[in-house]
Amino acid sequence: MHKLLILSKEAGQYRLLIEKARLPDLTIESTLTPEIDIVFGSPSLIKDALASLPALSWVQTTSAGVEALTNPAARRDYILTNAREVFGGLMSEYVIGYLLAHERKIFELQQSQLSKDWNDADTGTLRGKTIGLLGVGSIGAEVARTAKFFNMNVRGYTRESETSKHVDKYYHPSKSTLESDSLLSKQQQAAALQSFASGLDYLVSILPNTKDTRKIVDANLLAVLPSHALFINVGRGSAVDESALIDALNQNKIAGVVLDVFEQEPLPTEHPYWTTKNLMMTFHTSAPSLPEDITKIFIENYPLFNEGKPLKYEVDFEREY
Amino acid sequence: MHKLLILSKEAGQYRLLIEKARLPDLTIESTLTPEIDIVFGSPSLIKDALASLPALSWVQTTSAGVEALTNPAARRDYILTNAREVFGGLMSEYVIGYLLAHERKIFELQQSQLSKDWNDADTGTLRGKTIGLLGVGSIGAEVARTAKFFNMNVRGYTRESETSKHVDKYYHPSKSTLESDSLLSKQQQAAALQSFASGLDYLVSILPNTKDTRKIVDANLLAVLPSHALFINVGRGSAVDESALIDALNQNKIAGVVLDVFEQEPLPTEHPYWTTKNLMMTFHTSAPSLPEDITKIFIENYPLFNEGKPLKYEVDFEREY
Repeated sequence: MHKLLILSKEAGQYRLLIEKARLPDLTIESTLTPEIDIVFGSPSLIKDALASLPALSWVQTTSAGVEALTNPAARRDYILTNAREVFGGLMSEYVIGYLLAHERKIFELQQSQLSKDWNDADTGTLRGKTIGLLGVGSIGAEVARTAKFFNMNVRGYTRESETSKHVDKYYHPSKSTLESDSLLSKQQQAAALQSFASGLDYLVSILPNTKDTRKIVDANLLAVLPSHALFINVGRGSAVDESALIDALNQNKIAGVVLDVFEQEPLPTEHPYWTTKNLMMTFHTSAPSLPEDITKIFIENYPLFNEGKPLKYEVDFEREY
Repeated sequence: MHKLLILSKEAGQYRLLIEKARLPDLTIESTLTPEIDIVFGSPSLIKDALASLPALSWVQTTSAGVEALTNPAARRDYILTNAREVFGGLMSEYVIGYLLAHERKIFELQQSQLSKDWNDADTGTLRGKTIGLLGVGSIGAEVARTAKFFNMNVRGYTRESETSKHVDKYYHPSKSTLESDSLLSKQQQAAALQSFASGLDYLVSILPNTKDTRKIVDANLLAVLPSHALFINVGRGSAVDESALIDALNQNKIAGVVLDVFEQEPLPTEHPYWTTKNLMMTFHTSAPSLPEDITKIFIENYPLFNEGKPLKYEVDFEREY
């Protein structure tokens, strides 16, 4: 008999959905007991329980990001699976929504209405623009497919994978860069990133928080973007050098920024982002975890776990995603 | 030798593009002369020149809407062709942009940012929503295709055509309605419209200005929309009963309206639309006529005209589109 603990703000809803599936040999525990071998929930809540779960053998997260659990100092003696494939549609809506708000000048036109100004100046289009995706996993692939639907050119920057056919051109760090911390390899990575970013109309980061992605969006990368470029971050706040981004906006080196994720969340009220010009923010809401979608992953994975087979969406602790 | 007159705010740009195509047996006139047999341009400018063009045999418009020329009192002794196929992509961007602005609450979230409020309430999605298209010609078909890409359900209301495979269900007035002005047939049309509109999340009008479309969006139609519904008009302002629309918004019978077109353009500053709550407007800019795209249509049509063959996109003066 497996014992499951649910650690989530929506635990009640998840419990009902899992009970409804009548999974064999599974009981759902209401409190943390030493016999629990499966945990389902959000990484930040699970992290604090790890020390009290001696029998733990599988964790299924409700999120795609798992950085709270891949910290090298934390235990890694269990199977970690995350949620994938379910966020791409929502994140694509978010990205396209803000790209269109930018191109169609919907905030400026709202101001025109307020001043009763018949402002019939032409607005822009997505057609023919070039979008660069930092990170092309299952979410990036869906953003790429959506960008292609709107007739954009699509570039992708990934560690090494080239799985989406909707990316026109891929860019990667050299292999030696991945395996070394030397100054030379950092320069090689910077060169690959700069070719990737050069001339982009839109830069979108969908990167997870790993040792290889920290502050990848830095002053050097921002410097090669055209002044009309828009940057959107729906991945993790850690991928951005915050002061470099603020400088780029203040100096009009780029046209606009849309951030859904931040180094610290909720963002402290004293943070300069709140009032940086041409910076628009949302509050880690670009792609909420919908309990029906996430529970489906658990229900698919449970029989595989029960039979000792490889699970879907296993996280590589070394890669941190 | 054919003689062409260009009547457009962008006449200079069109002239260069047409000259570049080196069309045979064609001279471009700079002033209105009696020998002119072809006119290319915007209907409102062409209308005023009609009386001074005794040799006129073909008019190619730069717009899709041609109501300035289909007025029953005006002459109809020439071939009228309009611009089609070129606006669908831009109008789809507009519609999807405002639908996403609505679902993702981008104006509310901008206010949250201004008040430094970490507002992480869930926002909505297009997935699974039902959109109703009033008018499904080449523009409507492209909006339908885009709606399907975002996994919406699509209804279409047309006179009788069912040409887009991206429409899940079509609604039509009965044949007798089209041929009669009787009270009964008006009621039949209202019944078909109400089935079409009932329960829609989004209503989008792409209707041309004809005798059959005037005030089709009236109090009865608005009454069957759910209170969370959004109405977008990218067709013609004449399709809307303005005071019924303002009442529906003031009484919260629908959630929002986005208008790009109006009975009178530019909209007079004293018009109540400017300040009606939950009404957002743009200024007949949802799909600008891009000279490269429009000129292509003229260049394709010219040899057909020259050889006396049927032209592309001929307008039926009776139907008015």
